[in-house]
Amino acid sequence: MQLSALSARTGVAIPTLKYYRREGLLPPGEPVSATRAHYDETHVERVRLIRALVQGAGLSITAVRAVTEALDSPPASRHELYGIAQRALPVPGADRPVRHEVRELVATLGWRVTDDAPALRSLGDALDAARSGGIPMTPEVLERYARSCHPVAELDVEQVRAAESPSAALTTVVVGTVLTDPVLSALRRLAQEDVSARTADPRG
Amino acid sequence: MQLSALSARTGVAIPTLKYYRREGLLPPGEPVSATRAHYDETHVERVRLIRALVQGAGLSITAVRAVTEALDSPPASRHELYGIAQRALPVPGADRPVRHEVRELVATLGWRVTDDAPALRSLGDALDAARSGGIPMTPEVLERYARSCHPVAELDVEQVRAAESPSAALTTVVVGTVLTDPVLSALRRLAQEDVSARTADPRG
Repeated sequence: MQLSALSARTGVAIPTLKYYRREGLLPPGEPVSATRAHYDETHVERVRLIRALVQGAGLSITAVRAVTEALDSPPASRHELYGIAQRALPVPGADRPVRHEVRELVATLGWRVTDDAPALRSLGDALDAARSGGIPMTPEVLERYARSCHPVAELDVEQVRAAESPSAALTTVVVGTVLTDPVLSALRRLAQEDVSARTADPRG
Repeated sequence: MQLSALSARTGVAIPTLKYYRREGLLPPGEPVSATRAHYDETHVERVRLIRALVQGAGLSITAVRAVTEALDSPPASRHELYGIAQRALPVPGADRPVRHEVRELVATLGWRVTDDAPALRSLGDALDAARSGGIPMTPEVLERYARSCHPVAELDVEQVRAAESPSAALTTVVVGTVLTDPVLSALRRLAQEDVSARTADPRG
């Protein structure tokens, strides 16, 4: 299809598609003349992914490029995918040392996490924000939250293993890491209402 | 303390504090003269809460006002807190109908959720964003994610019940709803690395 058809299929304006191409997010089409190129289903898929990351997940163009570059050269093992996905995504404070409290938590849990995992840093920042808002988050409560997150992560990894190809698996890791947080956040709120209703009126 | 001391204690500039006061987020101090007022620890706490909501959770001033108004007139029962907290926070698409798929999910789970819960709407939007990014999210997978979120919500409600006063409970609900999402998100990523490492090398 031509660029105009790609625009119609994806609902993204032609100048925006040209911008994605210049920025290296969208691979070039197959040239059919000096001024025209042919685009296929892989381009449709890529444009949808870029939109999802920019609009759905609020990523910057630089962060999207890190993701698409990883997609264009998938790693050999699926375990490496987690490292690539987590490192592709922007994490505030990635250059700060990991906090003692966070190291203690991981040791207590016995989790196998490499020392350069960005989530080790972002957990420290997230704890700061929660505590400054008046949420105590004692080590004991934090440990219980961590343990109750583990089954969610087991489901995540199962989804990645079920993906058909390394590239589909990387999409699941990268996009899933960012785009399913809001799904879990909504489910958590619904579950809170359920638990609260049952506690207030145990008959139901 | 005077406004300058409140500024020094909280690290928030005096003009910003005056802005919070004009917007009704920060209650007035006790007047000590025509131009001076006395502020106490409740003001320090309130300023920290506002900062956490604005900077940590990215809320607008209007959304923060909804939260502080709820804090200033706490409801009678703790179950009502969830309704107030969820309705105080801005939800995109709150005026749209709840999707059939979301109703089916809640029915399958047997969860007790009132029909006006904003998370019913935000779940639909979150599913759209995830799917447009290539994450399939079948009804079966969604149901499993929902069930694995329930223990997290049980912990959430337990924290609220442990709070000392209705006002402390409301802080936990409102702030906790927004500010602990990033904590859970970081824990989920750490747990993913752990699960992935164990799957790749089961000896450890």
